[in-house]
Amino acid sequence: MKDKTFLMIPGPTPVPERVLLEIAKHPIGHRSSEFSKILESVYTDLKYVFQTKNDVIVYTASGTGAMDAALSNLINEGDKVLSLVIGNFSRRLAKIAKGLGADVEIIEAEAGNAINPDILKERLDKDVNKEIKIVTLIQNETSTGVTNDVKTLVSLIKEHGALSVVDGVTSVGAIECKMDDWGIDVLITGSQKGLMIPPGLSFLAASEKAWKVHEQCKHPDFYFNWTTNRKSVRENSTAFTPAVNLFCGLKVALEMMKEEGIENIIARHTKIASALRVAIKALGLKLFVTDEKYASNSITAILPPEGISVPDIRKVLKKDYDIEVANGQNELKDKIFRMGTLGYVSERDVITAVGALEAALYKLGYKFELGAGIAALIKELNK
Amino acid sequence: MKDKTFLMIPGPTPVPERVLLEIAKHPIGHRSSEFSKILESVYTDLKYVFQTKNDVIVYTASGTGAMDAALSNLINEGDKVLSLVIGNFSRRLAKIAKGLGADVEIIEAEAGNAINPDILKERLDKDVNKEIKIVTLIQNETSTGVTNDVKTLVSLIKEHGALSVVDGVTSVGAIECKMDDWGIDVLITGSQKGLMIPPGLSFLAASEKAWKVHEQCKHPDFYFNWTTNRKSVRENSTAFTPAVNLFCGLKVALEMMKEEGIENIIARHTKIASALRVAIKALGLKLFVTDEKYASNSITAILPPEGISVPDIRKVLKKDYDIEVANGQNELKDKIFRMGTLGYVSERDVITAVGALEAALYKLGYKFELGAGIAALIKELNK
Repeated sequence: MKDKTFLMIPGPTPVPERVLLEIAKHPIGHRSSEFSKILESVYTDLKYVFQTKNDVIVYTASGTGAMDAALSNLINEGDKVLSLVIGNFSRRLAKIAKGLGADVEIIEAEAGNAINPDILKERLDKDVNKEIKIVTLIQNETSTGVTNDVKTLVSLIKEHGALSVVDGVTSVGAIECKMDDWGIDVLITGSQKGLMIPPGLSFLAASEKAWKVHEQCKHPDFYFNWTTNRKSVRENSTAFTPAVNLFCGLKVALEMMKEEGIENIIARHTKIASALRVAIKALGLKLFVTDEKYASNSITAILPPEGISVPDIRKVLKKDYDIEVANGQNELKDKIFRMGTLGYVSERDVITAVGALEAALYKLGYKFELGAGIAALIKELNK
Repeated sequence: MKDKTFLMIPGPTPVPERVLLEIAKHPIGHRSSEFSKILESVYTDLKYVFQTKNDVIVYTASGTGAMDAALSNLINEGDKVLSLVIGNFSRRLAKIAKGLGADVEIIEAEAGNAINPDILKERLDKDVNKEIKIVTLIQNETSTGVTNDVKTLVSLIKEHGALSVVDGVTSVGAIECKMDDWGIDVLITGSQKGLMIPPGLSFLAASEKAWKVHEQCKHPDFYFNWTTNRKSVRENSTAFTPAVNLFCGLKVALEMMKEEGIENIIARHTKIASALRVAIKALGLKLFVTDEKYASNSITAILPPEGISVPDIRKVLKKDYDIEVANGQNELKDKIFRMGTLGYVSERDVITAVGALEAALYKLGYKFELGAGIAALIKELNK
C-alpha cells in the first residue's frame, strides 16, 4: 500500500509522530533566543544520553561526517593508529585515518565476529614504546549485527594510554554505552538511529585527554573543527547555520528519552532483540553472529533458509507487507538480511515483523511450522 | 503571538506549506528505489537552478560545509589564492583557504561596497607568471546586502586562467547566476535561501577545469570528497546517509521552482527588493549599500533613523508584529538591520514588512509621514 512502509532497517528508523510534527513547523531563526533555548535543552539532554559530562557537539551532517570529524581533529601525518575492524563501518574509520596520513594497522575479525579482547591486549602489550596514539573501534557493527565489548576493549586502551575513538552510530541510545564510566575518549553517533529523528544530524563528544591531543592537531578543519564548534555549544549556539527543524524535533525526541529513562530504553532494546533472535531460531533460521553473546540489540543479521533468496524475502516483505528490511553489504549482499530494532521500537513492532516474516517465508515455500516464530517470540517477551 | 513568527532574515526563510508537509512524512529508506527516484528528480532539477550541465553534489551540511568542501578539494599547501572580500561571508572563504595552507592575498572593499572589476583586472594583469591558482568571491554578501557583478568578475578570472570559486549561498535561485554561460568554476549554495527548504543541505557544482585541479589536490577529505560524492550523484544515490526528509521537501520545492521558471523567480526577487528599497527611502531611511547598482535583491541592509536604535526596531517588529529581521554582524552589529526577501517571498510579504516597519518606527517616535513607505512601495510594485 502507498505511504505505509514500515522501516526495519538499521536507519533511518521510525520517528515518533510528535517529533515529525515538530519538524514540520516553519523554521525559526537560528540566532533567535527561542532557538537558543532549544539548543540549551538539546545540549543538556545529549549529555544524559551520552552519559558524559563532556560537551556534545552537534554537526549538521550524517554519521560519516562525525566519523570524519572525530579523526580529522586528532590525527597528524604519520601518527600510528590501530583500527579494530569487524565490518564495513569499523573499516570506514580505518580508511578515514589512512586518508589523513596516519600509519594504520588493522586488527580484523571475520564478519560475524567481535574483536577478541585478548588479541587487542596482546598487541597493546607489545607496544612498549607507546607508539600507538589512537585506537578506533565500533560498538555496534551495523553491517553484521555484532556488538563489541566496548567496556573491556576501552579499558585495555585506557591502560595502554592511547585514545579510544568509538563509533556509536547504531548503539548510543540503544545499547549500554557509558562514555565517562568506561573512559571512552571520543564517542560519536547519528540522529536517525537511537535518537529517533530523521537523518541529518550527528554528534561527537570528547574527553579532556582527547581535547589535549586535538590541540596538537595540525590538520585544518573548518566546518568540523572541534574548537569552533564547542565554543558555540557552550554559548547555546551553533558555529554555522544548523538544520533548525531537525534540532526542534531532536528536542522533543530527547525529552521522550529522558522520560523513559536511558536504562529502560536499553532494557527495551535488549528484550526486543533477544526475543527476535529466539523467534528467528524457532523458525529454523540462523543468526549471522557467530557467538550470541556478541549479538547486537539494535540490528539482527539473519541467514536465509536454504533455497530461499534474500532478494525474494525482502521483495515479499516490501511488496505484500510494506516492511523494509536491509540487505547485506558488499560481500554479504544477498547472503544475509538485516532487521533493525532500533530507536522508536516496541514489542508490537517485532510481533509485526516476525508475523510478516513468517508470512513471507510461507509464501516463498519454506517448510516450517507456521506460527512457531510468533509463539516463541511472545513467550520470550513475557518471560 | 505564539507560533506566528514571520522570518524576514537572510535565512532560514519561509518554507512553502507543501514542502513542510513533505518533510513531515515518515522517513523512507535512503537505499530504496523510491528514494533513488526522488534523487534523480532532485539532481536533474538542481542543474536547472544552477543553470549548468555539471553534476550538482548535495551535502548534508550547512552552507559553510559546502564552502569548506569547495576549497578543501582544490587547495594544496602553498597554493596562491586571491580572495575578494566585501564582508563576513566572503572573508570566510579566505579564512578557509588560509587554514588549508594557501598563500592568501585579499582584495577588500569597504563594507557596503562591491568589488570594483577594474581593481581585480589590474591585479590579475600584474600576475604575468600566472601564480594565482584560485580566486574566491561571493555573489551576494549576506552581511551587507551587496551583490558583486559576478558575470564581469568571473570573465576577468577566466581570461587570466585562475579558477573562480563563487559563494552563491544567498543568490542562487534569487539573483541571476548562470554557471555555464558565465564560466563559473565552482558554485555553491545552501538550502534555506533561494531553494525554499529548511537549513541542512548544501550544494556544489564544479566545471571540468575545476575537476582537473581537484585531481591534483592532496588534501584528504572523506565526507566532503568531490569524487566519492559525484560518483553517487551519477548513480542517483548519495555517498553517505542523507537528510532524507529534507531531500523529499527539496524535490517539491524544486518542482515549484521549475513551474515558476528561473527567469520569473529572479524577476520576482528583483521587483520586490527594488520596491522595498524605494519604500525605505520614502521613509527617510538610508540603504547601507553605497552604490544602488550593487544593491542585493535578496537582502536589504538599512541604517536606522537617527535617535532610534537597531535593537529597538528589531524588538518592536518581533514583539508587536511577529516579524524577525536580522541585526548587523560583528562591527556592523546595532549599526544596520537586514531584511531578507529571499526564496518563498511575495508582494504581500513586502507590504506586510513595510507596513510593520512603519508601525514600529511610529511607536518608537520617529517623525515621518505615516503611510509614505507603503504608498511608495505599492506604486513601485505596480509601475
